[in-house]
Amino acid sequence: MIGGGQGAFIGAIHRIALQMDGEYELVCGAFSSNPEKSKAGGAMLGLQPERVYLSYQELFEKEQQLPENQRVQVISIVTPNHVHFEPTKMALGNGFHVVLDKPMTFSLEEALKLRTVAAESGKRFCLTHTYTGYPMVKEARQMVASGKLGKIRKVYVEYPQGWLSRFEEGGDNKQASWRTDPKQSGIAGAMGDIGTHAFNLAEYVSGLSVTKICADINTVVEGRQLDDDGAVLLKFDNSASGVLIATQVAAGEENNVKIRVYGEQGGVEWQQSDENTLQVKWLDKPAEIWRTGTGYVSSYAQHNSRTPAGHPEGYLEAFANLYRNFALCIKADMAGEETKPEWEDYPSMEEGVRGMAFIEHVIASGKSDQKWTDFSI
Amino acid sequence: MIGGGQGAFIGAIHRIALQMDGEYELVCGAFSSNPEKSKAGGAMLGLQPERVYLSYQELFEKEQQLPENQRVQVISIVTPNHVHFEPTKMALGNGFHVVLDKPMTFSLEEALKLRTVAAESGKRFCLTHTYTGYPMVKEARQMVASGKLGKIRKVYVEYPQGWLSRFEEGGDNKQASWRTDPKQSGIAGAMGDIGTHAFNLAEYVSGLSVTKICADINTVVEGRQLDDDGAVLLKFDNSASGVLIATQVAAGEENNVKIRVYGEQGGVEWQQSDENTLQVKWLDKPAEIWRTGTGYVSSYAQHNSRTPAGHPEGYLEAFANLYRNFALCIKADMAGEETKPEWEDYPSMEEGVRGMAFIEHVIASGKSDQKWTDFSI
Amino acid sequence: MIGGGQGAFIGAIHRIALQMDGEYELVCGAFSSNPEKSKAGGAMLGLQPERVYLSYQELFEKEQQLPENQRVQVISIVTPNHVHFEPTKMALGNGFHVVLDKPMTFSLEEALKLRTVAAESGKRFCLTHTYTGYPMVKEARQMVASGKLGKIRKVYVEYPQGWLSRFEEGGDNKQASWRTDPKQSGIAGAMGDIGTHAFNLAEYVSGLSVTKICADINTVVEGRQLDDDGAVLLKFDNSASGVLIATQVAAGEENNVKIRVYGEQGGVEWQQSDENTLQVKWLDKPAEIWRTGTGYVSSYAQHNSRTPAGHPEGYLEAFANLYRNFALCIKADMAGEETKPEWEDYPSMEEGVRGMAFIEHVIASGKSDQKWTDFSI
Amino acid sequence: MIGGGQGAFIGAIHRIALQMDGEYELVCGAFSSNPEKSKAGGAMLGLQPERVYLSYQELFEKEQQLPENQRVQVISIVTPNHVHFEPTKMALGNGFHVVLDKPMTFSLEEALKLRTVAAESGKRFCLTHTYTGYPMVKEARQMVASGKLGKIRKVYVEYPQGWLSRFEEGGDNKQASWRTDPKQSGIAGAMGDIGTHAFNLAEYVSGLSVTKICADINTVVEGRQLDDDGAVLLKFDNSASGVLIATQVAAGEENNVKIRVYGEQGGVEWQQSDENTLQVKWLDKPAEIWRTGTGYVSSYAQHNSRTPAGHPEGYLEAFANLYRNFALCIKADMAGEETKPEWEDYPSMEEGVRGMAFIEHVIASGKSDQKWTDFSI
Repeated sequence: MIGGGQGAFIGAIHRIALQMDGEYELVCGAFSSNPEKSKAGGAMLGLQPERVYLSYQELFEKEQQLPENQRVQVISIVTPNHVHFEPTKMALGNGFHVVLDKPMTFSLEEALKLRTVAAESGKRFCLTHTYTGYPMVKEARQMVASGKLGKIRKVYVEYPQGWLSRFEEGGDNKQASWRTDPKQSGIAGAMGDIGTHAFNLAEYVSGLSVTKICADINTVVEGRQLDDDGAVLLKFDNSASGVLIATQVAAGEENNVKIRVYGEQGGVEWQQSDENTLQVKWLDKPAEIWRTGTGYVSSYAQHNSRTPAGHPEGYLEAFANLYRNFALCIKADMAGEETKPEWEDYPSMEEGVRGMAFIEHVIASGKSDQKWTDFSI
Repeated sequence: MIGGGQGAFIGAIHRIALQMDGEYELVCGAFSSNPEKSKAGGAMLGLQPERVYLSYQELFEKEQQLPENQRVQVISIVTPNHVHFEPTKMALGNGFHVVLDKPMTFSLEEALKLRTVAAESGKRFCLTHTYTGYPMVKEARQMVASGKLGKIRKVYVEYPQGWLSRFEEGGDNKQASWRTDPKQSGIAGAMGDIGTHAFNLAEYVSGLSVTKICADINTVVEGRQLDDDGAVLLKFDNSASGVLIATQVAAGEENNVKIRVYGEQGGVEWQQSDENTLQVKWLDKPAEIWRTGTGYVSSYAQHNSRTPAGHPEGYLEAFANLYRNFALCIKADMAGEETKPEWEDYPSMEEGVRGMAFIEHVIASGKSDQKWTDFSI
Repeated sequence: MIGGGQGAFIGAIHRIALQMDGEYELVCGAFSSNPEKSKAGGAMLGLQPERVYLSYQELFEKEQQLPENQRVQVISIVTPNHVHFEPTKMALGNGFHVVLDKPMTFSLEEALKLRTVAAESGKRFCLTHTYTGYPMVKEARQMVASGKLGKIRKVYVEYPQGWLSRFEEGGDNKQASWRTDPKQSGIAGAMGDIGTHAFNLAEYVSGLSVTKICADINTVVEGRQLDDDGAVLLKFDNSASGVLIATQVAAGEENNVKIRVYGEQGGVEWQQSDENTLQVKWLDKPAEIWRTGTGYVSSYAQHNSRTPAGHPEGYLEAFANLYRNFALCIKADMAGEETKPEWEDYPSMEEGVRGMAFIEHVIASGKSDQKWTDFSI
Repeated sequence: MIGGGQGAFIGAIHRIALQMDGEYELVCGAFSSNPEKSKAGGAMLGLQPERVYLSYQELFEKEQQLPENQRVQVISIVTPNHVHFEPTKMALGNGFHVVLDKPMTFSLEEALKLRTVAAESGKRFCLTHTYTGYPMVKEARQMVASGKLGKIRKVYVEYPQGWLSRFEEGGDNKQASWRTDPKQSGIAGAMGDIGTHAFNLAEYVSGLSVTKICADINTVVEGRQLDDDGAVLLKFDNSASGVLIATQVAAGEENNVKIRVYGEQGGVEWQQSDENTLQVKWLDKPAEIWRTGTGYVSSYAQHNSRTPAGHPEGYLEAFANLYRNFALCIKADMAGEETKPEWEDYPSMEEGVRGMAFIEHVIASGKSDQKWTDFSI
C-alpha cells in the first residue's frame, strides 16, 4: 500500500475492503512521504519493519529484489490525486498489478499516458469507483442491458453532500484541506471528488456514453479555491439526455448518491441510503422492489453479495467487491484459467480516462458561454 | 364554472375542492363549448336548468341580470389554456372574482394584459398552483423565511411523470390530446403543464426570483408536437443556483413532485408522495421530520389542515386550501374586515405572469446556442 | 346531523366527508344537548334556523312532519358513545337511514338490540370504520380474497398513538375527557376507541373471523379510569393466528395504523402513513408496490379514488368513500335499481355488533387468568 | 474455529467478521465432524494442514502443546446448537477465550453449567447476538439509559422471516434441516433461532428485564417438528409491558428485525432494513433521524462504526463489532490495561443464560392454559 497512513480516511477503508474476504494479505507499504509517519503507519498495522518503506520508489526497488513467491503482487495506491500517476506508472512498469483510488490522475494528459503504460505492462488495473461495486447497482446495469426497460431515454444522477458547507480547509481537517487544494486535487474540487463518481455511475448503469455536456460550476463558499458545487446537462450517444448534480454544500446531506434511468417501458432507481434495494418501475404495472441476497437477482448481484436477504451489506462490502473481483481475475490469470464476466466487472483504465476527461470537459464547459461542449477524448 | 364537463379531469377536482369546506355552492355553469354537452354537464351536477348556459358569454350576460344576492360571485375557469384569457377577462370585467387553472394564459402577452385588467377590476384572482396549497409546502416556505437555514444556496425542484411515455394523443385520451396540441396548449407541452408548477414551487418555497436560465428541452416521443421533457439550470436573485426537471416520459413515475432547498445551515425537502411530511436537515444535528396536524408547526401549516397528525390530507385538500383561502379573503372584504396573511397566501396574478414568462423563456433558451438566457419580464 | 357542534373533532370530519362528493346536503341538525350550543352550531353552518333543533327527539318529530320531498333522508350521528343507541334506534324507527360513528353502542347488549331494530326498519345503516374506506385497504382485502396469497396464516394489526401519554382529561381537552370517561365511553378506553378499528381492519382485510383472544390490557397513565393500552393474541376461524396492538401511550406516535396479512405464498402490508400504497410481498419474487389511481388495481380501489396516481388522497377521502357508497346504495334503492358490490362494501350492522363484542371480550380477557377467551356472540 | 465448513452460512459470516478489522488471524480449525470435510474446509481457507484438526478434542489437545506465542488464543464455535456446550466448556477449561454462536446451549441446564465453568476459567466469552453490534442499536440503548425518554412503558420487538413458509427440511437445505430438527436445535425452532435475538434486543435496548410472559407458539407448516411461529406478551421489571413477535412463515419477509421502545416523553425505533438510522420520536416536537457516522451520536455509536455518515455499514460490520470489542478487551487484559465501557459492551454469559431461559419459558408458556408464566432463572 502506498499512502494511507494514520488519519487517512480512504486508506483505512481500502484495508478493510481488502481484508474482508481473505483474498489479500497486507505485506508491505510506504504509508507517507514523511519517513517517520510511514514507519509509524507500518508499525500500527503490524507489518514487518523491513517491509515498511520510506518512499514508494524504495518500495518498488526492494520488493523487486525479493524472490517472486515472497514479493508483493498487488499495489494499492491511496494517495491524494497529485501522487497517482508516478507510483502507478512505476508499479505497472515494475510488474505489479495496481488498485488505485479515483480520480485516476491529476490531469487527462497523465491519464492518457497511463493508459499506454498499462496496455504495455500487461498488468491488471482497478480504479475504485466504489458505487459500481454495489450488487444492486450491478443489477440496475443488468436490467438496462437486458432490454426490459426498452431504449433508454433519461439518466438522472446526483451526489449531494453537505460537509463542505463551511470553510473547513487550512485547519485540522486533512480531508477538506487536500480536496480543496488545486495543487493536490487538480483543476476540480467537487467535480473531481464526487462528480466523477456520478459520471461513472451514469455511464455504468445506462451502458451509454456521454457525448455533450452543459455545466454550471460554482464555488459557493467564500475563499475556496476549487468548485464545491455543480450541475450538468448531459447528452448520450443513443440520443438520451440527463442531468448530473454534484454538490458539497447541500447542508445536511451525507453521501446521498442516487441514480435513476428510464427507458420506454420503465425505469430503475437506486440510492446509497437504501443500498440493498433496486426499485424497478413499470409503465403499466406495479413497481417492484428487487433485493440483494434473493434467488431472483442476476448472477452479477448474487456473486457480489455475502449474506442472505435482509442482512444488509454496505459501502465496505461494495468496496470489497472491487478488490475481490480483481483478485479472482488475477488468480485465474495465474492459474491459466478463464475469468468470468462477473469477475471482470470492475472499473479500470477506460473508466479512469473517461473520468479525467469528464473533469477537464466539465470545468471547460463551466467557463464557456456556449451551451453545449462536445465530450470527446 | 366554465369548462369541466364530463370526462374533464380537472373540472371534477375543482368541484370537490370547492365543495369540501362548505364555502362555495355551485350555482351555474357553462361546461362545454358544445351546448348539448354543457346541458348534460349541468344536469349531472343537479343545477337548475336555467343556470346552465351554452357559452361563457351567455353566463356572464345572464348572471349580470340577476339580483346581486342571487348572482354567482366567483367564477371557476377550468378550460384548456387557449380558453383562459377571454373568459377571465370578461369575468373580471363584469365584476366577478375568478379562480383559474394554470398556466394562466396562452401567451405571456395575454398574461400581461390580464394583469392590467385584474388591477383595474379590483376583483380577486386565484391561479390554482395546487402544490403551494399543501401545508408542508407552506411550512417549507416559512422555514426558509425564518432565516433558520441561513442564506439560500441551492434549489432543486423536479416533476417527473411517465404518462406520456407513449404516443397517446389523437385517440380517446382527451387529457393527452389537448395537452400536446399547440393550438390548445400554447408553445409548451411539459414545460407549460408541469414545468410551471415546478417553477412556481421553486420561487414560492425559496422566496427568491429566477434571473437566468439554461434549458435543455426535448420532444422524446416520435410524432409529438410539443416538448415532453426538459431540464433547466437556474440562477436566482441572491446568487443561489438550482436545477429544475420536468418530464412526462419517465416511465413508471406518477406525479412525483419534489423540492429541496438548502441554505448555509440546513435544508428542507418535500415531496408529494409523502405529502404531510417536511424533512428538515441540519449541518450538525439530526434531521427532523415535521408533520402536519401537530402543535409545533407554523400558523400557515395549521390553518391549512383539517385533521389531527397522522390522518393524512392530500391533493384534494391542497386544492381546497386555495379555494378556502380565496373565500375567506372575499368574505372578509365583503364584511369590511381585515384579511389574515395566512388567507392571502394563495397564488395570484404575479405568479401567473411569472409562469407565462417561464414558458416563453424556457422554450427560447431551449432553442438557443447560448448558455444563459436572462429571465426578465 | 346529531352531535358535532363547535369543538367536536369528528363532527367536522363527517361534514367534510359528506360534502366532498356533492352527494349530500346538510339540511338540519341537533348539534348539542345544550340548546344554545345547538343553535350556535347550526348558525355557524348556515342552516335554516327552523331546522336547527334543540334535541334529537325534536329533530325526528319535526322532520317527520315535513313533506317527504323536503324531509331529511339520512341522519349522521356523531355523539359520544353513550348517546349512540337511542338516537340511532329512533332514526331507524322513524324511517331514516343512519350513518353512525364507531363504536356502535355503549354495550354489546345495546348493539344486539339495535341489530334487531335495523333489520325490522328496512333502512340502511353505515358505521364509520374509516380505515376500510381507503382504496388500498380494499385492494388488500381483494388480494386476499383472490387467493393469490394462498391460505392466510398470520394477521398483524397495530394502532399506536401517543396523544394520551399524559393525563389530559378533565381540562380543556374535550376529546381526551369523554374518551377516558366510562360514563360516556363505556367499559373500554383505547380498546373501544382504536382497538375496535384495528379489530375491524383485521377481519375486513383477512376475510376471517376471530374465534379466540388473549388480552393484556393496561391503564398506564396514573389516575386514568379506562384502559389506554393493550395487546391481544388472536386466533381465527381458519386456524390463522395474529396479534393486535392498540395503545394511546406510545409517545411520539400519531395515528400510525398498520396491517399485515400473510398467506402461504405472500403477504400484504398497508399503513396509514403511506396511505395510497399497498405493499405486496412474495415468497420467491420481488415485492410489489401497488398504488391508487393506476389502471391495474381492482374495481374496488378504482371506484374509491378520485385522482390520478401520485396525487394522494387521504383520511377525508376514505371517510367520504363510506358516505358516497352509502349514498349510491340509497339512490339505487330509491330508483329501484341494483346496487353494485363496490357500493355495498361499507361497514354496517354486523361490523358494529362484532366491534362491541370485541370490546366486551377483550376487557374480560384482560381480567382473566386463563390464556384464551372464546370469542362468540 | 470449530464448525463452519463448506456450505455453512454462519461460519463464513464469522470469518468475514473476524478478518474485517485485522484484529484476528485464522490459524487453526476443526471444521466438521467428518474428517474429510474438515480437511477440505481447512484447505479451502489456506490453513497449514497440520493445524486443521479432525475433531475439536484434537484441536484443544494439539494446540495446548504449542508454545504459548504460537498457540491459538480465541476459539470461534459455529456448530449447531447441540454441539455448543462441550467444545465451549473444553475451550474455556483449557484456557482459551471463546466466541460462540447463539443460542448458547441446547438447554438451560447446560447454560447454567457453562456459566460456572466460565466464571472459574477467568476467560472471556462472547455470544454473537449480532443485532446488538449495530451502532444505532447501541445508540438506542444509550438514549433510553440517558433518561431522555422518561420511564419506559412499552417495548415492541419483532423478527418476521418468510424463508420457512414451505417444508424445506430434509433435503439440500442444510440451514433449514438442522434448525427444524429437535436433536440439533433443542426444544425450540423459531423461538430459539430468532426469538432469542428479539428477546435479547428487547432487554438490551430497554435496559429492563422480562418478569412474565404469555406465549402463543405455533407450528404452522405441516410436518414440521418444531415451532416456526410465535407471539409473546411481555411484562418487565419496571412494570412496562410489551410484545415480541418471531415468525418464519411471514411469506415475503426477509430478516426484518425491528424494535420500538417508548417512554413517557418519546420513543426510539430501529429496524435492520434501515440499519444506520435511529428514529427518535417526541411527544411535542418533531421526530429526529439519528444517523451513524455523525458527530452528534454517542461514544458507543462512534466507536462501532468505520465510515462517514451516508456510507452504510451493515450486518457484517455489526458482527465485526462484536469480534473487535472482544479483541480490544483481550488485548487490554494482556497488556494489563483498563478496558473501556464501549469495548465491554458485547453480549456474554448473562445474555446467554437469559436466552436459554427464554427458550424454556416460552415453550412452557405456549403449552400452558394459564395466561402468565413467571420468568425467573
